[in-house]
Amino acid sequence: MNNKSHFNVKDERNLTMLVDFYELTMGNGYFDKGLKDKIAYFDMFFRRIPDEGGYCIMAGVEQLIHYLSNLKFTDNDIEYLRNKNTFSEEFLDYLKNFEFTCDVWAVPEGNPVFPNEPLVTVRGPVIQAQFVETMILLTINHQTLIATKAHRICSAADGRPVMEFGSRRAQGYDGAIYGARAAIIGGCNSTACTLSDRMFNIPAVGTMAHSWVQLYDTEFEAFKAWAEIYPDDCVLLIDTYNVIKSGIPNAIKVFDEILKPLGKRPLGVRIDSGDITYLTKKCRSMLDEAGYEDCSIVISNSLDEHIIKDVLDQGACIDSFGVGERLITAKSEPVFGGVYKLVALEGNSDIIPKIKISENDEKITNPGFKKIVRIFDKSSHKALADLITLRDEKINEDEPLILFNPVHTWKRKKITNYYTKDLQVQIFENGKCVYESPSVLEIKEFAKNETNKLWPEVLRFENPHTYYVDLSQNLWSLKQSLLHKYTDSYES
Amino acid sequence: MNNKSHFNVKDERNLTMLVDFYELTMGNGYFDKGLKDKIAYFDMFFRRIPDEGGYCIMAGVEQLIHYLSNLKFTDNDIEYLRNKNTFSEEFLDYLKNFEFTCDVWAVPEGNPVFPNEPLVTVRGPVIQAQFVETMILLTINHQTLIATKAHRICSAADGRPVMEFGSRRAQGYDGAIYGARAAIIGGCNSTACTLSDRMFNIPAVGTMAHSWVQLYDTEFEAFKAWAEIYPDDCVLLIDTYNVIKSGIPNAIKVFDEILKPLGKRPLGVRIDSGDITYLTKKCRSMLDEAGYEDCSIVISNSLDEHIIKDVLDQGACIDSFGVGERLITAKSEPVFGGVYKLVALEGNSDIIPKIKISENDEKITNPGFKKIVRIFDKSSHKALADLITLRDEKINEDEPLILFNPVHTWKRKKITNYYTKDLQVQIFENGKCVYESPSVLEIKEFAKNETNKLWPEVLRFENPHTYYVDLSQNLWSLKQSLLHKYTDSYES
Repeated sequence: MNNKSHFNVKDERNLTMLVDFYELTMGNGYFDKGLKDKIAYFDMFFRRIPDEGGYCIMAGVEQLIHYLSNLKFTDNDIEYLRNKNTFSEEFLDYLKNFEFTCDVWAVPEGNPVFPNEPLVTVRGPVIQAQFVETMILLTINHQTLIATKAHRICSAADGRPVMEFGSRRAQGYDGAIYGARAAIIGGCNSTACTLSDRMFNIPAVGTMAHSWVQLYDTEFEAFKAWAEIYPDDCVLLIDTYNVIKSGIPNAIKVFDEILKPLGKRPLGVRIDSGDITYLTKKCRSMLDEAGYEDCSIVISNSLDEHIIKDVLDQGACIDSFGVGERLITAKSEPVFGGVYKLVALEGNSDIIPKIKISENDEKITNPGFKKIVRIFDKSSHKALADLITLRDEKINEDEPLILFNPVHTWKRKKITNYYTKDLQVQIFENGKCVYESPSVLEIKEFAKNETNKLWPEVLRFENPHTYYVDLSQNLWSLKQSLLHKYTDSYES
Repeated sequence: MNNKSHFNVKDERNLTMLVDFYELTMGNGYFDKGLKDKIAYFDMFFRRIPDEGGYCIMAGVEQLIHYLSNLKFTDNDIEYLRNKNTFSEEFLDYLKNFEFTCDVWAVPEGNPVFPNEPLVTVRGPVIQAQFVETMILLTINHQTLIATKAHRICSAADGRPVMEFGSRRAQGYDGAIYGARAAIIGGCNSTACTLSDRMFNIPAVGTMAHSWVQLYDTEFEAFKAWAEIYPDDCVLLIDTYNVIKSGIPNAIKVFDEILKPLGKRPLGVRIDSGDITYLTKKCRSMLDEAGYEDCSIVISNSLDEHIIKDVLDQGACIDSFGVGERLITAKSEPVFGGVYKLVALEGNSDIIPKIKISENDEKITNPGFKKIVRIFDKSSHKALADLITLRDEKINEDEPLILFNPVHTWKRKKITNYYTKDLQVQIFENGKCVYESPSVLEIKEFAKNETNKLWPEVLRFENPHTYYVDLSQNLWSLKQSLLHKYTDSYES
């Protein structure tokens, strides 16, 4: 499989107008006030991990690049906007000749990421950097949500293959298409979504629906026909009528009468309803007794990480899982709450950090142009902590590093014998893309390697250890001074 | 606003390949077994209303029509499929010349719909009718989910306008674009999604983000600039620093110093964080005291129907709501579980009903080619019940109608003084579209009228009355006979 295959298709839609209207009213405002070329810095980050989990898996950067590379307002877009009677002709003229000139940095896909880390940072004329807010959030929020959920589900499956089966219950077409992409990044082996295979070279799989069985007068005839057509990879759906009394006996009969004479072995049976633990144990023993110890049992009935863990704990005999609606919508927590906030402005020669204060403490932002440094232990190669620093800070790896909790600052930790890695990479320089996305399967492999560098305590589902994300002393001091400045101003 | 406006853009993507792979393996199988022209009937229906609600709002038919009207495999699609080494050349040739020839019936958008009702029925060659499964489910599941959630949220707002603000947290681009469309059908007044306005003529709205305020040295300067640019529809975001100590005083100062001299009134203030009840009451009294009784208070902080009902019950002073992530993802229950099942085949001259049995009772299907009849009371014009009947059954409205519970058949009810309406309409005849979708705003109005025909007991959030969906005596008897036939076959 080759990502550069000529079979690949791209999303040809122009999504330039997929923008919250307020970005246009603000753009018109910046333009009117002569601020359009004011250089601003924005960070995209999230505040909380879904499902009370310990980590997230970054995803969506390739689609973000595609969007940023294709920003263009058509004449009809301009005419539509003119009819809103909200925008000046000068602003509409600016949009007509819009050219993206920002610098953009992002954490590459597949990296484990944590709350308050700038996953994407945009530097450029405020009117542009503001404009891309909706699509940055929409793209990264969606795919990171699904990649994270998929990683949890695949962890629960404990090495057994997981197939993504959710297209029909996804939230819209892209929910299916890009959701399947993110599910593979999170660890799924394959997808039912043919278009996602076509677009991203991720393996699409599938066998039969209940309708195939219903179409024939008897279940046996339906199975027989299938085995005749697909003798090499025969998987039968055995729960149309009754798994134990009808499905398994008919399957075994077909394996005996059709496959055996051809010298073929059956690939599997699939169960899509009923009591998974009971049915799979019973099926396993019936298959084994008939000499089909190598016939897989596939399960696909409203699964998620908790049900998978439960049925495996109960001794269910399952070889692979098809996971649908609860994966493709991240049902247990279907929102990834990424936000996009102004963090700095450029003066004549310096960077002026900006902060957003809030009555909700957790909504207070980290000011300034920053980066994320991941700190690894030199002996175990495990990730020990992330440190958010100002962009120009340097860490001398030969010296001990003091980390401290940004709220309870007396909680301090001295790190020695470590090395560091900058997480963000530049993806756009002055509006030109300077990064080539790996293939989806390469990203999946990368995600596997990088999550293996986290301690099991961070990866577990129940009460995971909170991975340390600390601020450098410089950044912490800067934040404190800005907080005091603003609260002093209206308390005085 | 005119739905035929030349500003409208269409989704130009070819979504033919957005299909579960098993529909292709089954298609190849039908082809191989000479069954491709076997005429089959499939029903799309759902089994349970999200959020323990009492009703759903049908949505997505316009997009379904768009998909069915544009089915086409490109040469590259065929080449991609050939490389799967799964399909016969004859089947690939069939796909290359694929022409949709099915009949399709659907419940028009905006209708209240209930469990087990065939929302979409497809009749045609089994290979085709099977192929469209994924897109029918994906399209109707998504938009019906969001329209239903929006209707709940708008009901809670009790007449106050609700704006859809969720694009950034949607599950993919279409989650935002078509989610906004469905939200309007469910009752929202406007959306932040500019592209949805462009595509469907639904009003896009928006003012400022926190970044506008942060960009200026002081909140007052930021508000002043905004009021100068937008004196006619000035809405200020007042929670960047501190609502009561900074936001409201600065807003009032700007209303006094900028708008008043121009003879303009402020439109509103928006609060996006903090204690809604406390803040809005305090804001209201401060605005009133300053002479701005007509200035609206807009709230937009992680709202849903329950929070809206709560804060209004607590006396919060709110004039309109912006609702984001919990609407656009239907967060409380983000899956609409529609399924698509084979219900009949055509013999030489008759229709052979088909059933799917299951260990889960609720997964047993209603067999046969059917229709939905809604029964209205002649005096109140309220909907009394829906009756699922075989397609050729006729109800004589001059005679009393006996309804009975399909499980507890002794629960019977005699209806008199009623009239009936068939819910499904034909949308495709022999592959040609025979239905013109109303505009989104027309559908919204229709949904409002039709839901008003339900009793308040069906519409309420907590323990709603279960709307009656019964089977005709003929359909019930048919189902029983098929159930007995199959269970007898493997019990004997």
